[in-house]
Amino acid sequence: MDVNEGAADPYGEDAWSIRLDHVFSDVFEREVRVFTVGSGTAANAISIACATPPWGAVLCHREAHIECDEGGAPEFYSGGAKLVLLDGEAARVTPEALREGVGRSARSIHAVTPSVLSVSQATERGAVYTREQLAALCDLARAAGLSVHVDGARFANAVAALGCSPAEISWRAGVDLLSLGATKNGALAAEAIVCFDARFAEEIARRRKRGGHLLCKGRYAAAQLLAYVEDGLWLRLATRANALAARLGEAAGPMLSVPVETNQVFIKPGVEGLARLRAAGVRYYDWGREGTGEVRLVVSWNQDERDVDAMCALLASLGGAGR
Amino acid sequence: MDVNEGAADPYGEDAWSIRLDHVFSDVFEREVRVFTVGSGTAANAISIACATPPWGAVLCHREAHIECDEGGAPEFYSGGAKLVLLDGEAARVTPEALREGVGRSARSIHAVTPSVLSVSQATERGAVYTREQLAALCDLARAAGLSVHVDGARFANAVAALGCSPAEISWRAGVDLLSLGATKNGALAAEAIVCFDARFAEEIARRRKRGGHLLCKGRYAAAQLLAYVEDGLWLRLATRANALAARLGEAAGPMLSVPVETNQVFIKPGVEGLARLRAAGVRYYDWGREGTGEVRLVVSWNQDERDVDAMCALLASLGGAGR
Amino acid sequence: MDVNEGAADPYGEDAWSIRLDHVFSDVFEREVRVFTVGSGTAANAISIACATPPWGAVLCHREAHIECDEGGAPEFYSGGAKLVLLDGEAARVTPEALREGVGRSARSIHAVTPSVLSVSQATERGAVYTREQLAALCDLARAAGLSVHVDGARFANAVAALGCSPAEISWRAGVDLLSLGATKNGALAAEAIVCFDARFAEEIARRRKRGGHLLCKGRYAAAQLLAYVEDGLWLRLATRANALAARLGEAAGPMLSVPVETNQVFIKPGVEGLARLRAAGVRYYDWGREGTGEVRLVVSWNQDERDVDAMCALLASLGGAGR
Amino acid sequence: MDVNEGAADPYGEDAWSIRLDHVFSDVFEREVRVFTVGSGTAANAISIACATPPWGAVLCHREAHIECDEGGAPEFYSGGAKLVLLDGEAARVTPEALREGVGRSARSIHAVTPSVLSVSQATERGAVYTREQLAALCDLARAAGLSVHVDGARFANAVAALGCSPAEISWRAGVDLLSLGATKNGALAAEAIVCFDARFAEEIARRRKRGGHLLCKGRYAAAQLLAYVEDGLWLRLATRANALAARLGEAAGPMLSVPVETNQVFIKPGVEGLARLRAAGVRYYDWGREGTGEVRLVVSWNQDERDVDAMCALLASLGGAGR
Repeated sequence: MDVNEGAADPYGEDAWSIRLDHVFSDVFEREVRVFTVGSGTAANAISIACATPPWGAVLCHREAHIECDEGGAPEFYSGGAKLVLLDGEAARVTPEALREGVGRSARSIHAVTPSVLSVSQATERGAVYTREQLAALCDLARAAGLSVHVDGARFANAVAALGCSPAEISWRAGVDLLSLGATKNGALAAEAIVCFDARFAEEIARRRKRGGHLLCKGRYAAAQLLAYVEDGLWLRLATRANALAARLGEAAGPMLSVPVETNQVFIKPGVEGLARLRAAGVRYYDWGREGTGEVRLVVSWNQDERDVDAMCALLASLGGAGR
Repeated sequence: MDVNEGAADPYGEDAWSIRLDHVFSDVFEREVRVFTVGSGTAANAISIACATPPWGAVLCHREAHIECDEGGAPEFYSGGAKLVLLDGEAARVTPEALREGVGRSARSIHAVTPSVLSVSQATERGAVYTREQLAALCDLARAAGLSVHVDGARFANAVAALGCSPAEISWRAGVDLLSLGATKNGALAAEAIVCFDARFAEEIARRRKRGGHLLCKGRYAAAQLLAYVEDGLWLRLATRANALAARLGEAAGPMLSVPVETNQVFIKPGVEGLARLRAAGVRYYDWGREGTGEVRLVVSWNQDERDVDAMCALLASLGGAGR
Repeated sequence: MDVNEGAADPYGEDAWSIRLDHVFSDVFEREVRVFTVGSGTAANAISIACATPPWGAVLCHREAHIECDEGGAPEFYSGGAKLVLLDGEAARVTPEALREGVGRSARSIHAVTPSVLSVSQATERGAVYTREQLAALCDLARAAGLSVHVDGARFANAVAALGCSPAEISWRAGVDLLSLGATKNGALAAEAIVCFDARFAEEIARRRKRGGHLLCKGRYAAAQLLAYVEDGLWLRLATRANALAARLGEAAGPMLSVPVETNQVFIKPGVEGLARLRAAGVRYYDWGREGTGEVRLVVSWNQDERDVDAMCALLASLGGAGR
Repeated sequence: MDVNEGAADPYGEDAWSIRLDHVFSDVFEREVRVFTVGSGTAANAISIACATPPWGAVLCHREAHIECDEGGAPEFYSGGAKLVLLDGEAARVTPEALREGVGRSARSIHAVTPSVLSVSQATERGAVYTREQLAALCDLARAAGLSVHVDGARFANAVAALGCSPAEISWRAGVDLLSLGATKNGALAAEAIVCFDARFAEEIARRRKRGGHLLCKGRYAAAQLLAYVEDGLWLRLATRANALAARLGEAAGPMLSVPVETNQVFIKPGVEGLARLRAAGVRYYDWGREGTGEVRLVVSWNQDERDVDAMCALLASLGGAGR
């Protein structure tokens, strides 16, 4: 409500927007540039477009959000770069897969040029990269001439899960660009592109404008991001959601299909089990193809604990671990 | 605040977003589809991209916002369409200019294909197209095989100035796509693409997603647009701003460089006059090239009348019409 | 040399270019439109761009030329469409793989839209689709709302191998667009986009111009294509090359890694065997990743039979089938 | 015919293609990189795309070929850059126009970024830039942070007209990239991108491949370019055509609408005069809009002198200067 008082300069020249760089530089323990956008898709696509030429390859996991859920936004913003898909458990890219992917597209003028590695932290399966895992990937990427982008739509949950500093799993590990999500963790509509490599900053600004993501009244987005990080709110919300998810994971017992590391819980009650969930009033959509019998439960930043209790009971009744 | 209560389905499936089509269909007296985006640049660029192939020409005024102020967004979204620039007083496209522009680029396989006319209502110089003027342009456009887009960043001010219905200066005149602005007239960050031709709807949805403008929590944008139009707020705000601008126009007297029709006032106090304005505490930037001695005054949707009184006095002191 | 006499109208208005549609309509037993371009990459990318929106998916085999060897041209021409990769032996797409691929990307506004199936005839592994196999794929594609493109860089070899008419494995099977190669089968630099669906023709013409592939002196390319098909030269050359390749296949015996169906022969003599080939003066590059011990032998349209004899002897000495 | 003997390595690895850099380095008296393409449109669009970001502005004359006759190819290859149009007599950009154009688009994040100046030498009106004129433009461009591209579809005619060395009106004047035409001056289908700034070379190679302009059998294009420049053929042909055009210009007398400097002759016999030309068997199309009564006569590289005699007589009969 504060930010709604009075007038302010437009297009990022207001006091809130101006503070963003400073506040995020504190959070990340080094000078960074921050650019607000309205969606994770925009944050990812703009970041990636700055790190690959149109004839480049973006290496990412087969289940990455940028591959599966952004309607081709990375291809659009980059002018037609190709996403080269990598394997790995729990949507986590492995060093072997990265090596293979680089080799796959690096042969000649006839192939696309490997240009950027994009990993999700936490992953689309709720897993996290440890600091060491991430640094190892970044080292490999660097050696192959790639920049590194992190899709951090759920970055807060990863930081909370790892108990590390934001710096440790970003620039200190070798990350160049971070899409830092806030919307899935409490904001109305605000995501940040955090730029650790100054050479990308001007291009991000230009691509953001050109994509229609430079807002006239930028203070409303900036205020959300400031409130999000300034007193640690982001990590408190994420820690709580992670903890509730852990309870769901325990309750799911043998139905659990991926170990719970953050606030996403993947269970496989089977087609029949799912029908019983639905009968009990649970709304869901099939994870992946229909008929796999798997669903994803995501604990919201403001989830009522009683919801979790109720779901735990339901899971127990389906053959989970009981309570 | 209401919209912030509880949870809602994401990506436009919430109750507010779902009501948008219905409410705007009432406002426009026919069935329309409405797509929210976060900026006028996005609304314009997505609309235009749906109405031209990449090898097409977008005909617009030389001073159009899409040409001068969107960082190349129309070219980006359209995949490289060309803006063909037309002349006309007060940033208003004339029928002659339109005819000439169509002729200029319609010759052969070697030229780009004239595909869409985009006009601003109100224009970048605060002028409006009457219903008849707009219909005449639309007829010409239609005859030449063009679709018609209206950049309505200040559409409310035009409707208020003309005292007509929204329908009269949109689809009834022959308009296919309208970027309906709300942000400059009170909203936080919400613009609407109003689609009068159903064949564009699916493509708008795809391009919005791909541009990163489909919001997860769409209700916050939808609520702004609903509040904006549901009880006529948009026209009350615009009417008031127009009236205050008219007072400024009178006070400017001979310094006025364009007749005042909406809430924008262009004055030419000369370089010296501008220096005196600045000395009096007025912040401004040169309109057009530096040294022209011209500036634009825009009356805000919530402008304090005392601001206007003070500016009128200042203008009088600079040789305006007195009070 | 004939075509070099005198002057002619430019940009496809010469007598040779004008005859193209007529001559190819005869070859394909129905009215077609033909567009010459200078490379197979251009033929493929322009065709595909006409059959997918920028937010579309192009389904193709994992080893397809459009995926592996065109430097991202399909993504460039289409404005960022995504290639969705399918599996299948000998670089042949299977119906199961096609079904799976369509399912993979057809879910929602968040995914890309399956738009076109592109298959290579012959495939990148020298295999052919029978008329029935191709028709089955086309039926599946059609049912899923996809257009069908054939990369026919080696189409002549496929026609020769199948002993069918060009019509049978193109439009009669359900193909909409064919890249018909001539360069690999004797031409200097000429490929044809054969358009079976008139609704694509105008767009092909525009995209060809825009890509810089509309030649001022089109007669030189047209003359190559006319000479290629008018008296059956293309099939005589392909038949001969296929036959010589069959001899190589026999000589390779157990080293053969893919059955020989056209003029490409894949052998796997192992790393050591390859070293011996090299020592014997054979120039080659590793097929796929280095160290696989596999190479591709392609019989040229004008290959000297003595070359083939010599290579057969070499293969026998490496443990092939002998003669 | 020589180049057609035997086999050669593909994709620019043949002996002719490899010699290109060396031979053109001699012609231009410094190390250059040369890339063959099949059309002037491709040469221009690829060059320009390397010198501007997608959000950049390409400054060029209002009548430039890249603006009027390439179907939007520069926008396509550049990913949506904007052409900013400049004025000047005889399609020659003036320093004043360049300054104004840079000012027009250099204001802020909302505008496109002036990135490259593209001038035609000779111009679309047959005029040439003197060495001094070109150097002055290049200096201005450089000072404004722009690269300089020359559309040299008729570069040979300009060199011949100016009696200078190719170096003097290219890199010595400050040019970074040159589209060197051969097709309009005798070649079958071959144009060269001559790259004076090594930092563009890799990108040109990538964009050429991606545009489908890297030819499998590159030797046929290379041989044309070698024959064109190696013994001065290009300048002999251009000198002759220029001289014949001069005769036409004299014969046109008062009908001449632009002074003749190269091999293009613009005459304005009026609508009636044109009708008489047509009646006399001359084929032409109106220059510019229909009804202007102006046409362009272009003397071909192999024009029969008797054609010129005949046309001179015709012009005299229309009220030209007589003989």
